[in-house]
Amino acid sequence: MTALQHLPALRRVAVCGGTHGNEMSGVYLAKHWLANPSEIQRGTFHTTPFLGNPRAVEQCVRYIGRDLNRAFTMDILNYKDSDTDSYECQRAQEINQTFGPKGSSQAYDFMLDLHNTTANMGSCLIVASEHDLLPLHVCSYIQKQSKRKHCPILLYQQQGQETYSINSVSKAGLAIEMGPQPQGVARADLLAEMRSTVAYVLDFIELFNKGTLFPAFEIEAYKVVGSVDFPRNPSGEISAVVHPKLQDKDFQPLKPGDPIFQTLDGENILYEGNDPTYPVFINEAAYYEKKAAFCKTEKQTLSQPALQKF
Amino acid sequence: MTALQHLPALRRVAVCGGTHGNEMSGVYLAKHWLANPSEIQRGTFHTTPFLGNPRAVEQCVRYIGRDLNRAFTMDILNYKDSDTDSYECQRAQEINQTFGPKGSSQAYDFMLDLHNTTANMGSCLIVASEHDLLPLHVCSYIQKQSKRKHCPILLYQQQGQETYSINSVSKAGLAIEMGPQPQGVARADLLAEMRSTVAYVLDFIELFNKGTLFPAFEIEAYKVVGSVDFPRNPSGEISAVVHPKLQDKDFQPLKPGDPIFQTLDGENILYEGNDPTYPVFINEAAYYEKKAAFCKTEKQTLSQPALQKF
Repeated sequence: MTALQHLPALRRVAVCGGTHGNEMSGVYLAKHWLANPSEIQRGTFHTTPFLGNPRAVEQCVRYIGRDLNRAFTMDILNYKDSDTDSYECQRAQEINQTFGPKGSSQAYDFMLDLHNTTANMGSCLIVASEHDLLPLHVCSYIQKQSKRKHCPILLYQQQGQETYSINSVSKAGLAIEMGPQPQGVARADLLAEMRSTVAYVLDFIELFNKGTLFPAFEIEAYKVVGSVDFPRNPSGEISAVVHPKLQDKDFQPLKPGDPIFQTLDGENILYEGNDPTYPVFINEAAYYEKKAAFCKTEKQTLSQPALQKF
Repeated sequence: MTALQHLPALRRVAVCGGTHGNEMSGVYLAKHWLANPSEIQRGTFHTTPFLGNPRAVEQCVRYIGRDLNRAFTMDILNYKDSDTDSYECQRAQEINQTFGPKGSSQAYDFMLDLHNTTANMGSCLIVASEHDLLPLHVCSYIQKQSKRKHCPILLYQQQGQETYSINSVSKAGLAIEMGPQPQGVARADLLAEMRSTVAYVLDFIELFNKGTLFPAFEIEAYKVVGSVDFPRNPSGEISAVVHPKLQDKDFQPLKPGDPIFQTLDGENILYEGNDPTYPVFINEAAYYEKKAAFCKTEKQTLSQPALQKF
């Protein structure tokens, strides 16, 4: 086990809702906190709530021109032409100016980004990679606080891939992906669950800033390794639905030979991988256009060193 | 009890999916049947499948310019200007030409329209009014065939109100409203349930055409009497969510004093009606813009006379 790691105190924290304008738990919470910010303040740092994609929120759609949460690449953030190709590219640059610049010492210390999914993902915690020490300590703290809830950790960044999500603008970040909830609907149960999860994150940062030593730990995480598209007919149209035995089974092992799709002719299509995988984002509405009926993950055990403020 | 009623045999039946382009059970079934129509044919009549709103289906949205399923009023159907004010008005006129004209003797005998809702409505059967003898016999047949499922009947037409739905173009019609299912998602379980419900409808028509006498019956139905909007702040924004005790409780009695909303400050808002109501479309995504957090219904018992072909 690696020795104790030290990081500086966190002074500026951002909480974002409405990065996708039809994921309503975060939209409602961010709007509420913009009007009533006291709930998300703590003694040792300042928290700034904001709406990621206000125009998409207004229209209750995921995005206007392109997915904002894939727009935080250096190419887009540094693009100079004032006629940036979409509203979201302009918005990404604005967010980068306010909460970044990405990769710089002026960037916010932490950004928490609030999402919903139509998939049965529970209170999924999304971190870029296993190298994100502080966010993984936050995840461990959340899991301890909310023992009865399913708070699996998802690592989204592929080997060698640039980060592109909104919270990659800050020095450290975490996304909460809560489901199942339909697009355009706010359920009271998920809203309350997301609200308490945000509170755990802020409580962790407060404890960290006050000098608490967070011991080393081992933790399970699911690393995204690819995705599986729907079967399609020759004209590209989807020709099968997610199999009832796979539906709602996010984070449960899927073995070679297990059914994954059912065609409208009643034929079962089986999983052909060589090894078990742990599917996530099963039948997520927003991923039909991304050609992903589900994402494949590998289950890993991560060892993380102890952490304390400098 | 009224005496035996007679109606002519049904020769032309239409089955519509995608009246709302993001309600996927009907979209997938209609596309499948357009390519493979044999499943919905019977010996005594011809069935025509079609997509209600193909452009909305393409974009996976409810509608392009306005809600197609409110566009079948005589005003819109008879509007002469070629620059009709939206795609859906043009489409309503096309559908009226193909399957109507509404109210005429040339109209199709029956139209079945396939919908999904994000609300927990089960396999809800929507009929215009208690005067729709043939559709109510169809509902009774469906309830008998699918005994284990919840197939409540909803009467949508208000006193003195013109019919406006797509199946008002045909001589008789029925909508299936199946949920809960998120917009833009096709769940295998609901797809199978909708498919078998469609088969029951076609089987009923086949039996009717062959001379079966369907006896008189009494049946429970829920008649829409109004709707309740979300609480809003002075600028018109929604300031509360559907209460967890009301969420998913469609068709269950709501009594005066029962909680219906929860504000983001934690305050409960109670139902103030004088009598119990039976809420439906609770937290339906598409009704946020229609300012309806839920619809109120009255539970009625309808007596329907026996029915046989002329």
